[in-house]
Amino acid sequence: MSKRILCVGLVCVDFKTVVKQYPLEDTNQRTMDTIMERGGNASNSATVLSMLGCDVEYFGTVSDCQNKNFIMSDFEEYGVNISNIVICNNSKCPVSIVIVNSENGSRTILHSNRCLRELTYEDFKMVDLSLYNWIHFEGRPNNDDIRLMILDIKKYNLSVDCHKRITISLEFEKIRTYPLDIIPLVDYAFFSKDYAKHYGFNDMETFVSQKSAEKNKTVICAWGECGAAAKIPDSSVVTSKAFPPKQMVDTTGAGDTFIAACLYSLIHGLSLEEALDSGCCLAGAKCGIMGLRGLKNSREITYTCKKKKDMVNSR
Amino acid sequence: MSKRILCVGLVCVDFKTVVKQYPLEDTNQRTMDTIMERGGNASNSATVLSMLGCDVEYFGTVSDCQNKNFIMSDFEEYGVNISNIVICNNSKCPVSIVIVNSENGSRTILHSNRCLRELTYEDFKMVDLSLYNWIHFEGRPNNDDIRLMILDIKKYNLSVDCHKRITISLEFEKIRTYPLDIIPLVDYAFFSKDYAKHYGFNDMETFVSQKSAEKNKTVICAWGECGAAAKIPDSSVVTSKAFPPKQMVDTTGAGDTFIAACLYSLIHGLSLEEALDSGCCLAGAKCGIMGLRGLKNSREITYTCKKKKDMVNSR
Repeated sequence: MSKRILCVGLVCVDFKTVVKQYPLEDTNQRTMDTIMERGGNASNSATVLSMLGCDVEYFGTVSDCQNKNFIMSDFEEYGVNISNIVICNNSKCPVSIVIVNSENGSRTILHSNRCLRELTYEDFKMVDLSLYNWIHFEGRPNNDDIRLMILDIKKYNLSVDCHKRITISLEFEKIRTYPLDIIPLVDYAFFSKDYAKHYGFNDMETFVSQKSAEKNKTVICAWGECGAAAKIPDSSVVTSKAFPPKQMVDTTGAGDTFIAACLYSLIHGLSLEEALDSGCCLAGAKCGIMGLRGLKNSREITYTCKKKKDMVNSR
Repeated sequence: MSKRILCVGLVCVDFKTVVKQYPLEDTNQRTMDTIMERGGNASNSATVLSMLGCDVEYFGTVSDCQNKNFIMSDFEEYGVNISNIVICNNSKCPVSIVIVNSENGSRTILHSNRCLRELTYEDFKMVDLSLYNWIHFEGRPNNDDIRLMILDIKKYNLSVDCHKRITISLEFEKIRTYPLDIIPLVDYAFFSKDYAKHYGFNDMETFVSQKSAEKNKTVICAWGECGAAAKIPDSSVVTSKAFPPKQMVDTTGAGDTFIAACLYSLIHGLSLEEALDSGCCLAGAKCGIMGLRGLKNSREITYTCKKKKDMVNSR
C-alpha cells in the first residue's frame, strides 16, 4: 500500500470536560478534568488511520485563529499529513464543548461554528488525485461541492488503470437533510444510528437492507451497543456484535474510530464482515478510554493490524 | 487617588457557550456562540475596576501553558496591571466551561483546575505594599496563606500614617469551609447568596445582621433578584434593590462586577448604601450583556462614575 488515504471534512477543537454527574442547570461544579483535543469526524478518523500505520492525509479548512497552531501541531504529532489544508483568514475555529459523564460515558456535545467556511470544489481541484487510493468524505453542509468533488474522482477513475482507481466512501452522521442521490456515486456509505433512528428505523439490519436496496450501494451502519450491520447489494446483511469496554469512559469519536478501522480493513482486502468486526472492536476500545491518545498502544490496534497481516500471509 | 487597588485571587479561561435551551444529556446541539474569555473572580473584578477608571492590579498565579499569552494580552487590553503575577511551570491553566442559557440567562459552570498552585505567602512577600490603598482577596483554598498576607498588611498599616493605610476586603463566594476567624482581620467581608443559603439563611438582611454581629465587622451580601444588603456593626442594615436588565443574557461575573462597583464607591468616599446601589446597578447591567466587554461603554459605568464625581464636587 504505497498510496495515501484522504479524509475530507471537519477539524475543530474539543474542550472535553469530565463530570462526576451530569450538571443540573444553574449550578457550579468542580469537574474531574478538562482537556483540549483536536476533534471533528474526518480529523478523528485520520488520527486512527495513522495509528493503524496508514499513510493518511486530512483535508479541510482551518481558521487562522489562536487555535491554528494547536491543530497543526496535533496533526503532526499523530503523523497525519496536512499538506493541502486551506487556511482561512477572518474566521474562528469551530469549537465543541463535550461534557463526558463519568458515571455512564455519555457525551453531550455543544458545537459552535461561527464563520469558518466549508471546503469548496475550487479548493479540491488543487489536490493531486494520483496520490490517493481511498478518499473518505464526511457529510457536511457543502453538499453541492462534495458532489462535484466525487464526480471529479469518478472522472479520474475512468481515466486510469483499474488498480489506480480511488475508492470513495461517505459518512452521513448528523441529523440533517443530506442529498441521498450522492450515495449511488460512492462505494461505501456510512450512516449513524442517530440518523437511522431519526428516519424511523429501530434496528440496524432493516436500515442497511432498505438503504442498500434503495440506492444499490454498500451501506454500513454502526449501532452502539448492538454492534454494526452492513449490506452489499444482492448479498445478505452481515453484522458484528459490539465489544463494549469494561467501563464506559468516553464515547466521543467512537463512530470515527469505527469508520477508520473499517476503511483500514477494506483497503487491506478483508471482507465487509471482518471490517465490521474490526470497526466494532476498535470503537469499543475507544469507549473505554478518554480521547483517542490511549488507542495507539491498545491491544485492539494490535489485533486489527494482526488480522490484516494474517489475511495477507494466508493468501 | 494616586494609589492602586490590588485584586488577589484566581484568573482562569472561561469557554462560554450560549445555548438555545439547556442541553439534555447525551445530545448533540448547535450552540448560538462560543467565546473564550478571561475569567476568575479577582480577575473579573480587576477588569471592571479598570473600566471604572481605577489604577488596578491583578495578583495571582498563571500557568505557563498555551493559554498564558491569551490571559496576559487580555489583561493588557483591559488596562489591568499584572506586574507581580507568578508564572508557574509544569501546570495547566484552570478552565471553566460556562453554559449560558439564552432563554433565562442561567449559567452552569464546570470548573477544572488540575495542577496550578495557589498563591503563597512567600509570593506575596515580594509585593511592595506602599503602592496600594486597597487590597481585595478572593477566598480560595489557600486560607492559611491568605491569613498571613492579611496579617502582613495589618502590620504594615500599623507602621504608616493613617492616610497611607490599606483597606482590606475579602470575598467568600464558594460553598466551602472558610476559616471565618479571618473576617475580624478585614474591613469589608463580601458573601455570596449561595454561601448564605447553604448555611440556612433565607434572606440577605438576616444574614448580614447575624454575620456582622458575630464578627463585629462590615458584612455585604448580594442576593441576585433581591438586590443587596450590608451592615456596619452598631448600625442598621442598609439595602439596595436589584436593577434587572430588560433581558437576562449572561449572569457570569455579576458578583465580581458588584464587588468592583462597591470597592470603587467606597474608595471614593461614598456611603455603604450608595456603594450597594452602584454595585447592584452595575451588576444588573452586566446581566444584560454577554461577557464583560460591553460594560465599558454602558450607561451604568457612566452613572457610577458620575455619582462619585457629584459626591466629590459637593464636598
